[in-house]
Amino acid sequence: MNPSTSALLTDMYELTMAQAYLEQGMDEPAVFEFFVRRLPTCRNFLVAAGLEQGLDYLSELRVTQEELAWLEQSKRFSLELLRYLEALRFTGEVEAMPEGTMFFPHQPILRIIAPLPLAQLIESRVMNLLNFQTMVASKAARSVLVAGGKPLIDFGLRRAHGAEAGLLAARASYIAGFAGTATVLAGMAYGIPLYGTMAHSFVQAHEDEFLAFKHFAETQPDNVVLLIDTYDTEAGADKVVAVAQSLQAKGIMIKGVRLDSGDLADHARKVRRILDQGALPQVSILASGNLDEYRLRDLVQSGAPINSFAVGTAMTTSSDAPSLDCAYKLQEYAGRPCRKRSEGKATWPGRKQVYRYDADDGCIDHDVVTTDDDQLSGHPLLRPVMKGGRRLAASPPLADVQRATAVQLERLPASLRVLDPSPAYDVRISDTLQGLARAVDRTSTIKGVT
Amino acid sequence: MNPSTSALLTDMYELTMAQAYLEQGMDEPAVFEFFVRRLPTCRNFLVAAGLEQGLDYLSELRVTQEELAWLEQSKRFSLELLRYLEALRFTGEVEAMPEGTMFFPHQPILRIIAPLPLAQLIESRVMNLLNFQTMVASKAARSVLVAGGKPLIDFGLRRAHGAEAGLLAARASYIAGFAGTATVLAGMAYGIPLYGTMAHSFVQAHEDEFLAFKHFAETQPDNVVLLIDTYDTEAGADKVVAVAQSLQAKGIMIKGVRLDSGDLADHARKVRRILDQGALPQVSILASGNLDEYRLRDLVQSGAPINSFAVGTAMTTSSDAPSLDCAYKLQEYAGRPCRKRSEGKATWPGRKQVYRYDADDGCIDHDVVTTDDDQLSGHPLLRPVMKGGRRLAASPPLADVQRATAVQLERLPASLRVLDPSPAYDVRISDTLQGLARAVDRTSTIKGVT
Repeated sequence: MNPSTSALLTDMYELTMAQAYLEQGMDEPAVFEFFVRRLPTCRNFLVAAGLEQGLDYLSELRVTQEELAWLEQSKRFSLELLRYLEALRFTGEVEAMPEGTMFFPHQPILRIIAPLPLAQLIESRVMNLLNFQTMVASKAARSVLVAGGKPLIDFGLRRAHGAEAGLLAARASYIAGFAGTATVLAGMAYGIPLYGTMAHSFVQAHEDEFLAFKHFAETQPDNVVLLIDTYDTEAGADKVVAVAQSLQAKGIMIKGVRLDSGDLADHARKVRRILDQGALPQVSILASGNLDEYRLRDLVQSGAPINSFAVGTAMTTSSDAPSLDCAYKLQEYAGRPCRKRSEGKATWPGRKQVYRYDADDGCIDHDVVTTDDDQLSGHPLLRPVMKGGRRLAASPPLADVQRATAVQLERLPASLRVLDPSPAYDVRISDTLQGLARAVDRTSTIKGVT
Repeated sequence: MNPSTSALLTDMYELTMAQAYLEQGMDEPAVFEFFVRRLPTCRNFLVAAGLEQGLDYLSELRVTQEELAWLEQSKRFSLELLRYLEALRFTGEVEAMPEGTMFFPHQPILRIIAPLPLAQLIESRVMNLLNFQTMVASKAARSVLVAGGKPLIDFGLRRAHGAEAGLLAARASYIAGFAGTATVLAGMAYGIPLYGTMAHSFVQAHEDEFLAFKHFAETQPDNVVLLIDTYDTEAGADKVVAVAQSLQAKGIMIKGVRLDSGDLADHARKVRRILDQGALPQVSILASGNLDEYRLRDLVQSGAPINSFAVGTAMTTSSDAPSLDCAYKLQEYAGRPCRKRSEGKATWPGRKQVYRYDADDGCIDHDVVTTDDDQLSGHPLLRPVMKGGRRLAASPPLADVQRATAVQLERLPASLRVLDPSPAYDVRISDTLQGLARAVDRTSTIKGVT
């Protein structure tokens, strides 16, 4: 069983609602939009990510014979639903913001148009995919903003929430500007550059740290990065110098050392001095160990001689905001715009488009959210990506997505490029959309819906 | 590609270290232990979970031909490593605490004994599996403790971190005492009871809320739970009464209503009154919407007439502690105990056992962590579960694990059964173990390792 591709990775109510829709003949086109209701307090912007896996999921949507058999023996579902599921394929349309697009609350980043039972069934997994990668890309972008161009590497697999989270966090952080990841499968699956050093266990398994360094260098002569804090960081650095001398004859150069504990800035300065005095100015220093964007900012601002950083748990789990207040909501059914009015959770009705406007300095200035048929002069952010269940274009290489994201990050106003909360970016709801919301509410009231 | 079962879901350095070990002929037995360094500040205990998936992973450990081909073309690895990976099988021993065991810092919950390259390679995924389910079970148990016996249901899939997180969060919360989940695949994979209601979109897709309720009841006559807050909660409750009357003739009974927004306690009281006055005293009230154990405690203590709760994002992501400070550390190699002494991250050396001692009232009183060959009078928590790569016993039914966990939760001292931080549970490090640590440090110093 592969949970990543199973059509039964969905909520129970999606199946019971689909059954009810089929029974009532309610299979007209439904329009659902995915958006975020509000930013986490510790975020000034979000970076859209996960679309690629969302489209993969839709393209490959099938219910297997094993799944059908299980659904049938549960005796909870109608024969009509089982037959429908047996033939299930995604046949709808998708419009979306490209991955790497900066976005803000109340802006749909994905719209699905499909027959109601189908558009409903895919809710849980579409949300699951977009929520996670968007959350991680948005967190990772903050580290990129404060790293001052120093390479960042994803070390998060071990504390990511399961297999797929580890894999997709590598992808989302790469989109946001990370140089690479330690997760091997992410290299194989997405072509993301792989980085790795050594673990404390490697040093401990040897009776002698010097020997551990020597053995590691001999086995990986082109990529020698030594972890030097297993016992005493500065003593470790001294051994690096000694090892380097003993390896000179073999033509093996040490590329870097890794610091993983203690006061990283202080150790980096002392280690830099030891390495320089040991005639190893080319050996770079990588820092790791419970780093997040705040510690990163402080380390960079301190001027500590650290050349690159590995960021793990905090980024992979988006520890200060481990979920987004996201929603996938029905905005139109059978041509009739609708909206939810639950307390604190009201939505803007109908199909929407987001127009972005630039300031004179090239930064983005404000956005207008309006109805999809309204034509404004700004740059529209949602584009068709799937029609009749087929992708309209091949997916762009991930490195291109990374480059496009970098351009967008540079175009964020300075006020949003900081870690601390800023005044909200200017997102306007057009008069047209506000008028539609009033009209929808009026119709509901007249018909006694509420 | 199924990330859940890929042997390449590992960190790059596991491969390079394995290559170095092979090159140096370092394939003697290594002993690694998984433990948590310290509790999150908002936890008083942890619940071990994830062992089952860990053993599955070890049992099925293989490198596929596709993966081998990819590793080879990367030109980063020796032929010796590639041949080793081609024949890779887990052949080692595992000792572990059963799932559902309460545990505390510095207590290994899992020990792996295997040839060094093998024990090293599996590090990342073993940590990934144990960290996640333990974290979720520990969070979910807190909701169970304050729910006063009211059923709890996992609604977390959509904001879980990917596919596997959604699936395994259902499993971990069920172990901790949840009644079931909305995640269909968790029902199929683990036999966890499935629950589901309806979504706002179902109501919105109908032009009339009354009709939506009626249609849903007719399609699921045995399990009618209606979501009543799409427009106005109390108006929704009035419609439930009307629908119930119109369905009486057909013999369809409404089982429950769901509240998902606003002041849940206040709405529950008003809705209860409407239902009772409408001759629907048997209709139960389910509450959902951003619930965590704190809101749950307040709602239960308020006496609000809520019969059951759905808990989603906060539990699935363990939002207040989205990772554990866990480690998988080499404690012995080739019969030689070892330990890491990095600042703030020192470990206790050697193979360890945890003995638990009870108080007179039947609650647990204190634990002693000692060396594995030390025989104490308490109840030993680590037991052999795998030898020669084979499980020693079939995995227990999940419902049995849930029952055993419930017994252990009841045996927690009252001071640990609260949500707020308590004084730490008494975990003692035996003199024998402290002596071993001193001996290890002495040997290292004499040999000039540091």
